[in-house]
Amino acid sequence: MRSFASDNWSGVHPVIMDALINANVGHHAAYGDDDYTRYAQELFRSIFGPKSSAYFVFTGTAANILALENTSHSFSAIICSEHAHINVDECGAMEKHTGAKLVVLPTNNGKIRPEQIKPHIKTERFPHQSEPAVISITQVTELGTVYSLEEIKALADLAHENGLYLHVDGARISNAAEALHTDFKTMITDTGVDILSFGGTKAGMMFGEAVVFLKPELDKYFELYRKQAMQLSSKMHYIAAQFIALLTKDLWKQNAANANAMARYLADSLKQFPEITLTQEVQSNGIWAIIPEELAEKMQKAQFFYPWDEKKSEYRIMTSWDTSKKEIDDFIKAIKA
Amino acid sequence: MRSFASDNWSGVHPVIMDALINANVGHHAAYGDDDYTRYAQELFRSIFGPKSSAYFVFTGTAANILALENTSHSFSAIICSEHAHINVDECGAMEKHTGAKLVVLPTNNGKIRPEQIKPHIKTERFPHQSEPAVISITQVTELGTVYSLEEIKALADLAHENGLYLHVDGARISNAAEALHTDFKTMITDTGVDILSFGGTKAGMMFGEAVVFLKPELDKYFELYRKQAMQLSSKMHYIAAQFIALLTKDLWKQNAANANAMARYLADSLKQFPEITLTQEVQSNGIWAIIPEELAEKMQKAQFFYPWDEKKSEYRIMTSWDTSKKEIDDFIKAIKA
Amino acid sequence: MRSFASDNWSGVHPVIMDALINANVGHHAAYGDDDYTRYAQELFRSIFGPKSSAYFVFTGTAANILALENTSHSFSAIICSEHAHINVDECGAMEKHTGAKLVVLPTNNGKIRPEQIKPHIKTERFPHQSEPAVISITQVTELGTVYSLEEIKALADLAHENGLYLHVDGARISNAAEALHTDFKTMITDTGVDILSFGGTKAGMMFGEAVVFLKPELDKYFELYRKQAMQLSSKMHYIAAQFIALLTKDLWKQNAANANAMARYLADSLKQFPEITLTQEVQSNGIWAIIPEELAEKMQKAQFFYPWDEKKSEYRIMTSWDTSKKEIDDFIKAIKA
Amino acid sequence: MRSFASDNWSGVHPVIMDALINANVGHHAAYGDDDYTRYAQELFRSIFGPKSSAYFVFTGTAANILALENTSHSFSAIICSEHAHINVDECGAMEKHTGAKLVVLPTNNGKIRPEQIKPHIKTERFPHQSEPAVISITQVTELGTVYSLEEIKALADLAHENGLYLHVDGARISNAAEALHTDFKTMITDTGVDILSFGGTKAGMMFGEAVVFLKPELDKYFELYRKQAMQLSSKMHYIAAQFIALLTKDLWKQNAANANAMARYLADSLKQFPEITLTQEVQSNGIWAIIPEELAEKMQKAQFFYPWDEKKSEYRIMTSWDTSKKEIDDFIKAIKA
Repeated sequence: MRSFASDNWSGVHPVIMDALINANVGHHAAYGDDDYTRYAQELFRSIFGPKSSAYFVFTGTAANILALENTSHSFSAIICSEHAHINVDECGAMEKHTGAKLVVLPTNNGKIRPEQIKPHIKTERFPHQSEPAVISITQVTELGTVYSLEEIKALADLAHENGLYLHVDGARISNAAEALHTDFKTMITDTGVDILSFGGTKAGMMFGEAVVFLKPELDKYFELYRKQAMQLSSKMHYIAAQFIALLTKDLWKQNAANANAMARYLADSLKQFPEITLTQEVQSNGIWAIIPEELAEKMQKAQFFYPWDEKKSEYRIMTSWDTSKKEIDDFIKAIKA
Repeated sequence: MRSFASDNWSGVHPVIMDALINANVGHHAAYGDDDYTRYAQELFRSIFGPKSSAYFVFTGTAANILALENTSHSFSAIICSEHAHINVDECGAMEKHTGAKLVVLPTNNGKIRPEQIKPHIKTERFPHQSEPAVISITQVTELGTVYSLEEIKALADLAHENGLYLHVDGARISNAAEALHTDFKTMITDTGVDILSFGGTKAGMMFGEAVVFLKPELDKYFELYRKQAMQLSSKMHYIAAQFIALLTKDLWKQNAANANAMARYLADSLKQFPEITLTQEVQSNGIWAIIPEELAEKMQKAQFFYPWDEKKSEYRIMTSWDTSKKEIDDFIKAIKA
Repeated sequence: MRSFASDNWSGVHPVIMDALINANVGHHAAYGDDDYTRYAQELFRSIFGPKSSAYFVFTGTAANILALENTSHSFSAIICSEHAHINVDECGAMEKHTGAKLVVLPTNNGKIRPEQIKPHIKTERFPHQSEPAVISITQVTELGTVYSLEEIKALADLAHENGLYLHVDGARISNAAEALHTDFKTMITDTGVDILSFGGTKAGMMFGEAVVFLKPELDKYFELYRKQAMQLSSKMHYIAAQFIALLTKDLWKQNAANANAMARYLADSLKQFPEITLTQEVQSNGIWAIIPEELAEKMQKAQFFYPWDEKKSEYRIMTSWDTSKKEIDDFIKAIKA
Repeated sequence: MRSFASDNWSGVHPVIMDALINANVGHHAAYGDDDYTRYAQELFRSIFGPKSSAYFVFTGTAANILALENTSHSFSAIICSEHAHINVDECGAMEKHTGAKLVVLPTNNGKIRPEQIKPHIKTERFPHQSEPAVISITQVTELGTVYSLEEIKALADLAHENGLYLHVDGARISNAAEALHTDFKTMITDTGVDILSFGGTKAGMMFGEAVVFLKPELDKYFELYRKQAMQLSSKMHYIAAQFIALLTKDLWKQNAANANAMARYLADSLKQFPEITLTQEVQSNGIWAIIPEELAEKMQKAQFFYPWDEKKSEYRIMTSWDTSKKEIDDFIKAIKA
């Protein structure tokens, strides 16, 4: 079965599967006290800079919660887009685990802007209302768009001028880096991001995400929070081995490049159908489009994808590290048939 | 590297690794809406009976929390042993996630008894104190001992007579079933257990545990709680495929039988050292023993294991599904040398 | 000092103060097991109907949280207005204590409408998102407007058709009942409201609010939740005595009638100033108005009131049970001067 | 009605009632921004020293939770006695609101000792277990005993040497100060206590407790936590006015002296009944005694008091600020009759 449903419907990249097989020898100290984990953490540090630290968890939701648990109190407000995964796709996990309130900003393209945030920042303590502590953005956004380096830097500056932190939900951070023709350090460390949820699963891993703290002290209590958040893997070296494979020889970039290219190729191919209207710029590995319902159903039979906004007859079509040109060509052929 | 540190230092059983490799084909619907997951859930139902339901999570801590989140309120009390994993090994996760209070009972052998529990049961509402909702036991206990079927049934009866639930933390449930020469249904369903945390990782999996509800309705909100608890795996079929391998052709029993037999063999071998005194009956895959410090250090150099109670010079030696007779013989030889 | 800042700047009505003095004799069983509390609870039942039950807490925030703790899970969504006290005036207390997510609807006049709510209701379980459990409205709203009986009933019907509850934050419920020329039972019980936060402090008490459950079972765990929420008063008969005074001989109505009438009188008096534009209909004891900054400052010196929306130069002027005609006349005179 | 049930069955001292009446004039800024509150806070500072700060809340449970919310994380452990109010009388409020774990130490007389605490202190981070953050003691203890200044200082020293805080639950702190013939500063500030819950209700107030932080920074987020904990009183000056009355002209001491003296007098009077055995030293305003059931029932008819440990036929008899010698003489007479 193949699909355009989501990049988490795809399997494990063969190089990563080989890494898992190779890691399955002998005993390894549990809970991350092993050489694979140490090596993978060092690898992250070499990528994000000497002041950074990286830790492994199971899911993207966990990465987001644990990224913010260190920098939020229960009375804090976390500022994010209305489309943010932490707002609409995590069943209220952020509220439950941190106790904090989400302050939700409207957006047409998934990106939030400094001028939207400013009115929510407080210049003095006002105990009747939650106190903003973090700005959280998603890169690639939930609408497939990509913040530019300047946009990220502007948000980081705004955050820091006001004693806030900037968090990036990077479930698809590889796709963003590839799309911007940049590297992780330039996009994240150098723009001033404080904390990053680094996506592994959608990048071709079986399971595993990383929380990357870009500055010292932000990870102060991370290990206690992680254990308490049920995210301490006992056989952690299997996550570490996957990340080592992903980050070595630029496998992350190769996977992202294919997914991104296939989305562009598919978008281009769809232009021949005048009934289809793209609603977002195709900047990474997703396509948002208004498609007449009848046509959409026909397309979904050829290869499944999800409705996005049923009222508008808008759909989301996702490519993955394993999407092939042939698959797209077949898809187009099937639609035409 | 080999060790007697813990059964979670061992790797993935080859049959399970093959299952992962075989599952890595094509796309699969995310978040458990796939055939592997459905099949694995059906397999659990066939084992535990038609009223049961099973769900997959990442860690044992998560299994325990999610087992109890459905049946506890924030004002509830959860009664357990002082050695319970939920009390001393989960960084306060139960308190944080459920809000409930742990009522902790002393025990010499890891087992709690009905007469210890009775004084804590309330016959009428008393809002100044947490209200008992669940009795939680561990099978195999944290001291390597195993509750008999009669002991489990007595606790289940006590719970039900008083409107409480009985939960079993079964991180090593396979070892217990094998040790009792029984099957899961007889030990769990037929004794009246309400909820079971079913261990996968220590039984030879890479990651993955199951929460098994033995009665209808107990899983009413499970899927919402699981997502909120950051435990919804996107590529869930990789957990399911492992459980299918573990539960098919009695691989669980074969793995447990080896671990248990090796613990007995090692315990027997240690009897030749009069300085070593076993402190618990060897009923599963762990050995608790007082060992003079100097001797212990020598032994740990041969193959590492953990101190248990440094004040008493007591140590814990764990065998695993992959422990071999030769490994033990070499260990004994090394000590003698 | 007098003010138009808020109805909680006023003191204790003399009849209620007398009730406190009279209740200060001898000993009374603590924690509500006393005759005053029983009598006051019975009084509430006689007002709201035989299926209702009432309990006392300290603050309005507490009443709101405890109203919803029984009917929400941590994965629940609570639907409310963007202006709702639970959203903007309680420092995130709802999120922290229930774990639930607030779904916030825009509104011009403080009232939310069924058609805004419907898109948020789910017809089947979807574990990625919080599950709506409660619609919460404020009566009198935070903008001084009052829901009609029909509007309340429509919301209650919508809630019940979809398995939700309707909660009313009634910090100023007396003002609403007086404004609608109705009684509490007609406005609350008969329209189908499930849970009511009944305001005491703003109605002329020293401290104390009530949570009224209109249907059986909704108070099932209330007493445990109240104790755990630090809201169990040890000398509870002092709250009860105040409520008895407030609810006997229609003192609540007399207080509300004065506050409401004084707001109308003040609004009428302000009409002589063409620079002042009322922004909300004056339906209870508050006036919202755009006032040129210079004029506003002059007025605030005469008698203080708060800015509401500084960008729009909008202000809120509140009257209270103790506001007098003379006070208003003096205020107008001072402005003119 | 009179009783020996608890010091919270008694009413409001007339001087305090007068203070409430006198404070009931005009308007006062809400939420503590008033002169009474400022004066009362200054009064506390003058008593506890220039580095201290005091804030008002409604209940003793709230004071304890809010005392510790600033200094505990959800992964923290709070070390206390098995009899601690936070452990057995607050319906699990501490666990719910802070997320922390209570580490409970056994005690015969209500006091915990440094040597019991030391084994629970960790010298390095161990993320599998909650990390001790606070030692919490009760003064007067829940068994009527009183820590000496030396005992408090030893616990404070132990706490500080290990990066922990010392909290005192002082619901009956006035009785303790009077019993030790000392003042609050000597007992609390000078021994090194970090945070104090200062009891008002049991000392003769209608409602209201204070949280006193003895060191700067410990109150950093208090006002946000208090609002979120539903403990921000809108008409706060009524709490402040009571505290001003209590702390002026040593009313606190006069009240405590009477309660303590009456307990001693009652204890002495009970010595004539050889069937009655005191089980704790009478150091404050409570008597613990084993009394044959038949005799106890007769006594309870004369004036009610609570059983403490029904299995041992042990009872608790409490005196209050309003207990009189005549009342005790009548009680003794009634028993003899």
